[in-house]
Amino acid sequence: MPSGAPNDAARAALIDALRALLGDAHVLLPGEHDLAAYERDWRKRYAGRALAVLRPADTAQVAGIVKLARAHRVPLVPQGGNTGLVGGGVPDASGTQLLLSLQRLNRVRQMDPSNLTMTVEAGCVLQSAQQAAHAAGLLFPLSLAAEGSCTIGGNLATNAGGTQVLRYGNARELCLGLEVVTADGEIWDGLSGLRKDNTGYDLRDLFIGSEGTLGVITAATLKLHPQPRARMTALAACDSLRHAVTLLDLTRSRCGAALTGFEVMNALSLALVAKHFPQLAQPLGPRPWTVLLELSDSEGEGHARAQFESLLEQALERGVIDDAAVAESLAQSQAMWHLRESIPLAQSEEGLNIKHDISLPVSRIPDFVERCDALLAERFPGSRLVDFGHLGDGNLHYNVQAPEGTPPADFLRERETAVNAVVYDQVIAHGGSISAEHGIGQLKRDELAQRKSPVAMQLMRQIKQALDPDGLLNPGRVV
Amino acid sequence: MPSGAPNDAARAALIDALRALLGDAHVLLPGEHDLAAYERDWRKRYAGRALAVLRPADTAQVAGIVKLARAHRVPLVPQGGNTGLVGGGVPDASGTQLLLSLQRLNRVRQMDPSNLTMTVEAGCVLQSAQQAAHAAGLLFPLSLAAEGSCTIGGNLATNAGGTQVLRYGNARELCLGLEVVTADGEIWDGLSGLRKDNTGYDLRDLFIGSEGTLGVITAATLKLHPQPRARMTALAACDSLRHAVTLLDLTRSRCGAALTGFEVMNALSLALVAKHFPQLAQPLGPRPWTVLLELSDSEGEGHARAQFESLLEQALERGVIDDAAVAESLAQSQAMWHLRESIPLAQSEEGLNIKHDISLPVSRIPDFVERCDALLAERFPGSRLVDFGHLGDGNLHYNVQAPEGTPPADFLRERETAVNAVVYDQVIAHGGSISAEHGIGQLKRDELAQRKSPVAMQLMRQIKQALDPDGLLNPGRVV
Repeated sequence: MPSGAPNDAARAALIDALRALLGDAHVLLPGEHDLAAYERDWRKRYAGRALAVLRPADTAQVAGIVKLARAHRVPLVPQGGNTGLVGGGVPDASGTQLLLSLQRLNRVRQMDPSNLTMTVEAGCVLQSAQQAAHAAGLLFPLSLAAEGSCTIGGNLATNAGGTQVLRYGNARELCLGLEVVTADGEIWDGLSGLRKDNTGYDLRDLFIGSEGTLGVITAATLKLHPQPRARMTALAACDSLRHAVTLLDLTRSRCGAALTGFEVMNALSLALVAKHFPQLAQPLGPRPWTVLLELSDSEGEGHARAQFESLLEQALERGVIDDAAVAESLAQSQAMWHLRESIPLAQSEEGLNIKHDISLPVSRIPDFVERCDALLAERFPGSRLVDFGHLGDGNLHYNVQAPEGTPPADFLRERETAVNAVVYDQVIAHGGSISAEHGIGQLKRDELAQRKSPVAMQLMRQIKQALDPDGLLNPGRVV
Repeated sequence: MPSGAPNDAARAALIDALRALLGDAHVLLPGEHDLAAYERDWRKRYAGRALAVLRPADTAQVAGIVKLARAHRVPLVPQGGNTGLVGGGVPDASGTQLLLSLQRLNRVRQMDPSNLTMTVEAGCVLQSAQQAAHAAGLLFPLSLAAEGSCTIGGNLATNAGGTQVLRYGNARELCLGLEVVTADGEIWDGLSGLRKDNTGYDLRDLFIGSEGTLGVITAATLKLHPQPRARMTALAACDSLRHAVTLLDLTRSRCGAALTGFEVMNALSLALVAKHFPQLAQPLGPRPWTVLLELSDSEGEGHARAQFESLLEQALERGVIDDAAVAESLAQSQAMWHLRESIPLAQSEEGLNIKHDISLPVSRIPDFVERCDALLAERFPGSRLVDFGHLGDGNLHYNVQAPEGTPPADFLRERETAVNAVVYDQVIAHGGSISAEHGIGQLKRDELAQRKSPVAMQLMRQIKQALDPDGLLNPGRVV
């Protein structure tokens, strides 16, 4: 609704109704407020313009907003902590979309330790949810880089992954029930602390991962786990990715569910960390592949250490690894994780790069990397592969950095489409996914339409049409 | 299409087309074949009549059947091993529904040990799938009483539960990807060995648990787990259900993911086993509540035994249990499970009873049982509660047996509706579900419509209408 258009009066009536519903302080208008924090995404790829930013206090207000938006046929873009990487939570540039911020719905509604569940609202920051579980002597295992600002609603809307998926699953597997405002503005109370409930279609999992296009998640009942007595970390050096997969097999078979982390880092990943963060110790020095392993032990540190030592000794004997270091203290464990977590930052220091958040069957990862590395070397000579990620889940961040001496911005502008085509072709050929944990949003919507099976796309469109026939919820995302 | 109706010609044309598609041997007609094994459900509550029984050999034939059925507007009822408990897989009495048996689609298509996955067809018997995993040195943990005849397709269509849910989840959590024939007769190839894949709506989980009403599952990629080195079982006696919940808390916190079974049995459950199967030893004798615990250990038997002994000693010291017995051998472990598994058989020997497959938040189970026991004692004096189940998942089989001296059939006929009303009212009041693991089918469809939130029912109807607008897939079930 551009200014001066004939529907100025309708716009004013909508804003008045929204103010009456939420209070003036929670309807933020452009011109009156700086809305940049809501309108621009975290990676700064998308800068939109909102008709207004709405900050409801509770589920009833969210439902009221959806009803008003529907009556006025105005699109709504739900937003949590605005930390998404695919432009799923910011308005477009038209100035006609309402930005619905869930941040004020941030209460922990219920903690039920004997049932190992808690119910929290969508705007609750992930770290606050983790802390609430910890205060009850329990573990909420979802953990990812943005945890200090991302929200549970956003985590569920995008089915967030992170570093503990190997053992505890994605956000989807950590959720038992939802409260959702539908596109009709009705409230579906699907909050539930049940681990078994076969009463009809799985609405919960339909809303999870739908990126705000089918309904607005307002609260969730989350699964908690017992806190492990000890967590212990080790690094191991492999001369090939194939050996890293063999180490994964061996570790899973010997340690079972105690294995909570299995990350790989190629030589360049850690070389960039060494270059940009020389103060971080690298216990094993430069190796083709370094694996970070984490055990969570329900007995204690001594037991975890004995497990690690016996495992790594066997792996050394079999020639699966050629060196290893077990953390001697919590500080050393944290330093090992810090190395891993510094890779994206080191990459940023090195300059813009072409990021891929892909997943593959673990068994096919060595073939994929070998083939894709070779193709990229051939077609983009000198391009550098920063390859790291959650090998235990089959999730790689397979990122392509400009050749030394080529300005990264030029490389990105000129090569991104062609590089993506090579990578995604190989991903699909190896049975993989072009978005493992970041979702689709705006960034990958067209890619998805080309790559996903037409039958799946058709089913998705039928569902969108059924649940949001006017297309007012987060339009232009996913489908 | 009753015989002699004007559409005899259409019926004949359909049968001809089906014969051309499947071969004469795989289109079974009433009159020509005894179809009782397909037309009658396992509990013998529903005896239907099929227009024909179809036995396709592969997915393409299933798609062809759906297209023919759609062209002729004839309903289809998919069926696996026909072991369901709610009448979800048998035709109605009209003689107008095609029975689509998936039993010939029974291959293991792929085994991928490094990815911990296998791809199997819908008609594969659960036990065969378990055996295929075992032969590859791995574990497919889904386990339930009907495993010798139920099929993977049926397990997924009903989101089957069983005895290992506490650790490994329901059928839903054990499935990574599906192949489905849609109501349009299109084949959706959603087979996938990926643990992370955020590319659009979660179609997989929408088909899982939809009981054949949204599409026909023809194959699935299933999650496998490392085989534990040892499994060990123990029995413990508690004077109250509240103490059993405390024991569950303690065990989870000490043993973490090693806890793979936590079953409770009330005194009457085991008394009926003693009465009808006196040859089965009951190590602890009659107690108010007996708990069966199972640990799966990735290290070995010695470690599992030490874990159990230390746990049970602490539970005894704290007064949570008053007796315990750890199995000394695999035979003793099996004998303990045999006790638990004999309860439904002992119940049958005792006579018909009113079964409830309910789930509740674990923390609310003691209150629920106390309240519901009291209400039933008051309203149906002398009625006897056979209460047992998977306490670790919050799933109880809370069954009501006729008073001594009352003919069970009379009790069932006269009291079932009133007993169900009492039990289900309390289930809902305590945040529970009226169908934990058996599904809805025909048996609970009306109950569901009354008990489920109207918003959820409306969403379910919208989805059904979107994906099967002609209502030809398993009509009269779920919605």
